[in-house]
Amino acid sequence: MHIGMIGLGKMGLNMARRLLRSGEHEVTGFDLDEETVDELREEGAGGTTSLAELVEAMEPPRVLWMMVPAGDPVDQTLDELLPLLEEGDIVVDGGNSNYQDTLARAERVHGEHDGLHYADAGVSGGVWGLEEGYSLMVGGDEHVIEQLRPALKTLAPGAEKGWGHVGPVGAGHFVKMVHNGIEYGLMEAYAEGFAIMEGKEEFDLDLTQVARVWQHGSVVRSWLLDMIEDALAESPDLDHVAPYVDDSGEGRWTVREAIDLDVPAPVITQALLARLESRAEGAYAYKLLAAMRNQFGGHAVKKVEN
Amino acid sequence: MHIGMIGLGKMGLNMARRLLRSGEHEVTGFDLDEETVDELREEGAGGTTSLAELVEAMEPPRVLWMMVPAGDPVDQTLDELLPLLEEGDIVVDGGNSNYQDTLARAERVHGEHDGLHYADAGVSGGVWGLEEGYSLMVGGDEHVIEQLRPALKTLAPGAEKGWGHVGPVGAGHFVKMVHNGIEYGLMEAYAEGFAIMEGKEEFDLDLTQVARVWQHGSVVRSWLLDMIEDALAESPDLDHVAPYVDDSGEGRWTVREAIDLDVPAPVITQALLARLESRAEGAYAYKLLAAMRNQFGGHAVKKVEN
Repeated sequence: MHIGMIGLGKMGLNMARRLLRSGEHEVTGFDLDEETVDELREEGAGGTTSLAELVEAMEPPRVLWMMVPAGDPVDQTLDELLPLLEEGDIVVDGGNSNYQDTLARAERVHGEHDGLHYADAGVSGGVWGLEEGYSLMVGGDEHVIEQLRPALKTLAPGAEKGWGHVGPVGAGHFVKMVHNGIEYGLMEAYAEGFAIMEGKEEFDLDLTQVARVWQHGSVVRSWLLDMIEDALAESPDLDHVAPYVDDSGEGRWTVREAIDLDVPAPVITQALLARLESRAEGAYAYKLLAAMRNQFGGHAVKKVEN
Repeated sequence: MHIGMIGLGKMGLNMARRLLRSGEHEVTGFDLDEETVDELREEGAGGTTSLAELVEAMEPPRVLWMMVPAGDPVDQTLDELLPLLEEGDIVVDGGNSNYQDTLARAERVHGEHDGLHYADAGVSGGVWGLEEGYSLMVGGDEHVIEQLRPALKTLAPGAEKGWGHVGPVGAGHFVKMVHNGIEYGLMEAYAEGFAIMEGKEEFDLDLTQVARVWQHGSVVRSWLLDMIEDALAESPDLDHVAPYVDDSGEGRWTVREAIDLDVPAPVITQALLARLESRAEGAYAYKLLAAMRNQFGGHAVKKVEN
């Protein structure tokens, strides 16, 4: 089938490549960056820096797969794209959109535009997806997903492996959000365990060795542990890495959702809070704690060095 | 080599079998339960219900591998076993002992008994170890571990895979303790994520399908997720499982150790607390919270039904 890939960043470019390399699909890529478009064209795809040209290059019913950053860029793309489309065309949001935004956008697309279809795909796999395939959690109407099936089979690790039509539109991003919330908890659990081992100086543990041992036969073996082993093998003390952890939204959305559903999720919440802690530069609360200890107990306050 | 396996429970019996089936080792099993001993004997091992007979059946230097429950049973076994042994014999504690107990026992063994050796092995792999091999984190003196090497190579998933000499005596159980602490965090992260999805009724998600999708290409793929998929495939609503989670010590030891080392471990701690919550039958704190809300705000208290 012919897929129009909108957004050729880290994820979109490699997904376009995976579709292309299968030999089973035609791909036309869109990105504002001309160099990236040229790169993809050299590999055998079509490519353009204009959405209108992208739409023109495809026969209806078109499949347009957006891989643009979550938030405003998705709405801006839709603003420009929707007026160009025809009945039967399908727009897929493959980015990390908030599922509630997806629900609202689906309503907009289906309401404003006769016969257009909107679907969502949570995509996991990062930089390894090109070779190993992407895990795809897809939401939308059955007949829409049926039309996407050939592309999904190619993008996934196997034709019937690693992708699933999990529910109606919005469900794909909802499942991806929870996936990432779980990921926060898993990452933090490993991070804490390795920090405890790092702190136990008397045993002088080789943490790369420990990660390697655990990779075979142990209950904690996982793909994340593979990554830990690689990171520690490169730099056992992680000297070049600052202790500052960003987040890109899904963790906090998962925590909010848990609260809305009255489902206690202490570990996912703590994993999010640990990231906030890592960035709390002023650490006002710690200052106030120290000041209180000084007030009621006369405990010495450590002075800020200038 | 000849291994004396002391304790033929779930773990010890299967480890004896794995050693036996390799064709490379002689195994003599000890257990107080005669039926289990007979079972192992029928598979080609030696076996006895007497520690004295076990020691007699082996040539020095002997390797005696204990797989008995952590705590008193280990000390009781040592009380009876140590007087029977000779210079050069090696005792390995392969159970889930607290590493501080292991340090004390090593001191006792090395102090009271000339030329006896003590080593510790954290063993992971559960009921799957027989087929897949066990992950082994081994602590002890280099020359002692060298003598154990042939058995370790057989017990592990591969000759040089899934086992490691991680440090001095005690280090094996320390690493295994942290391993289990991490396991608590990982399990709780998955549990919370699936609970959030279970609570989102409007999407009517098929959680077995989600687990299966995530197993290929996604960042959260792991062996624990395989287990989740199996459990949900058997019983999607987990109807037959009570919401009551036991712990066998390593989680609370990990939390204590983190505190002793001044290493914040909020997720591992929360994962332990979640297990305590699941068993808090009286839930006194919740009663008091409800009573306080009633006192200051006049909020209705839900009455206990009789």
